[in-house]
Amino acid sequence: MAFVYHRTVYLRDTDGAGVVYFLNFLAICHEAYEESLAAAGVPLEVLPGSRGVVMPVVYTQADFRRPLFCGDHLEVTALPRAVSSTEYELVYTVRRQGAEPVVSRALTRHVCIDPGSRQRQDLPPALLDWLARWGEPHQTSPAAAP
Amino acid sequence: MAFVYHRTVYLRDTDGAGVVYFLNFLAICHEAYEESLAAAGVPLEVLPGSRGVVMPVVYTQADFRRPLFCGDHLEVTALPRAVSSTEYELVYTVRRQGAEPVVSRALTRHVCIDPGSRQRQDLPPALLDWLARWGEPHQTSPAAAP
Amino acid sequence: MAFVYHRTVYLRDTDGAGVVYFLNFLAICHEAYEESLAAAGVPLEVLPGSRGVVMPVVYTQADFRRPLFCGDHLEVTALPRAVSSTEYELVYTVRRQGAEPVVSRALTRHVCIDPGSRQRQDLPPALLDWLARWGEPHQTSPAAAP
Amino acid sequence: MAFVYHRTVYLRDTDGAGVVYFLNFLAICHEAYEESLAAAGVPLEVLPGSRGVVMPVVYTQADFRRPLFCGDHLEVTALPRAVSSTEYELVYTVRRQGAEPVVSRALTRHVCIDPGSRQRQDLPPALLDWLARWGEPHQTSPAAAP
Repeated sequence: MAFVYHRTVYLRDTDGAGVVYFLNFLAICHEAYEESLAAAGVPLEVLPGSRGVVMPVVYTQADFRRPLFCGDHLEVTALPRAVSSTEYELVYTVRRQGAEPVVSRALTRHVCIDPGSRQRQDLPPALLDWLARWGEPHQTSPAAAP
Repeated sequence: MAFVYHRTVYLRDTDGAGVVYFLNFLAICHEAYEESLAAAGVPLEVLPGSRGVVMPVVYTQADFRRPLFCGDHLEVTALPRAVSSTEYELVYTVRRQGAEPVVSRALTRHVCIDPGSRQRQDLPPALLDWLARWGEPHQTSPAAAP
Repeated sequence: MAFVYHRTVYLRDTDGAGVVYFLNFLAICHEAYEESLAAAGVPLEVLPGSRGVVMPVVYTQADFRRPLFCGDHLEVTALPRAVSSTEYELVYTVRRQGAEPVVSRALTRHVCIDPGSRQRQDLPPALLDWLARWGEPHQTSPAAAP
Repeated sequence: MAFVYHRTVYLRDTDGAGVVYFLNFLAICHEAYEESLAAAGVPLEVLPGSRGVVMPVVYTQADFRRPLFCGDHLEVTALPRAVSSTEYELVYTVRRQGAEPVVSRALTRHVCIDPGSRQRQDLPPALLDWLARWGEPHQTSPAAAP
């Protein structure tokens, strides 16, 4: 049920060691997250002046098990789930297309806030729909805590 | 005949002014260039130890006529042409999908060099094929000079 | 009189070819521009909700004459000048510290606009002071056009 | 004893939400790591053809407690420690200069490998010196595991 995203590795993703720079694994995962929102019709409301909520990342972690090279074709699965009434997280799995071994596993946790006051807000209905479409059932247990 | 590349604008492409950071227009254009090479079966030989040639950018220019926002869907056309036996360049046109006005025009010029000696090399056959597929006929006139 | 900025090349600036990715030369030049504003006490008003003006880049160009490597120490000079009552540009020269040859020359041209209407605005006094401090005398001739 | 690094937040570090993009906290931390190596005279041997070892990041985590804005002045402390004969990690603390509250805490774990075979290598003497200078005493206990 998770969202699947395909992405080529570009030269800019790599660094002088000849492999993808560690942060760019996470950047690619965040693209998968944004595409999963778009596929569910949820706009990413990012402008400071936007009404409604913004959902900044408050925690991330990732491991990097195998090197990736320029030109590699990646398949990223993104699995979102709610972790409280105001927070959700996504677990990402990165593989080369058609290859079994996991290249990287990553996680981002997001909090819904009002962009003006920066106070926590409940997950709005559009995000609950997105979670229902791509994610696991709503859980309020702290099982996902790092 | 030019190569056409579609790309969503991601949050990382934007900056604190709420629009795409000027360099990320060029980064997106360079992705179009890499995809045009891949579509013609030309590997981007980038590793310092690679045989053959590398093709670093030696000159770039771009204008930015309209702001782009997170979530915009872009259509980038990339038109390559040889400018000498050792150099080629690409002209990029960025538009929003389905919209006429040009958002940005950009150019990158590349020189083929030996990655060890950094001496100029003739365009290898694979690049000539790529130019024949996506680009304009070979020209040695300096018409493309900035 | 130009502003001088020192910067180390970091791993993230390099790409899989073992050298600085072409856009990161320009990113480093833009840092020099931001530091020159800060040194003159001019805040970079970037938020869409900010009063006053924002100064997006509307044109850039750069050449790349020599490769740069991770760990290199750079000296960037940034020389601003007005090109009209609403536009200014900066010319950047990148060298390795203590070395004569120019590694890169770059240019960014900026237009002052109202962040809401995106209409052109005259250069505000703070920017005129900055130009007087680091730049060349005010010119309204189009001599700087590409 | 930890290494201290000062850094201004640049426009490129921010995103369309008006604050620093989450990954750029980590990019800034990695700069602190690179500067700590340089301050101890340890070259970052990153080229695939380099003799000796390369030290890719195999794990990272970070939290983001407060937003950062363009122009903010940061103070990053980087505290390295060995976690085995072949691995080390750094713990980073990001604050605004002169301000007490922690903005972000981050961690990167690195493994020494041969760049050709990608097999694990013991920490070379230069890295042991660097650990002795900026870090905590050598520990082989798994206390630092996530």
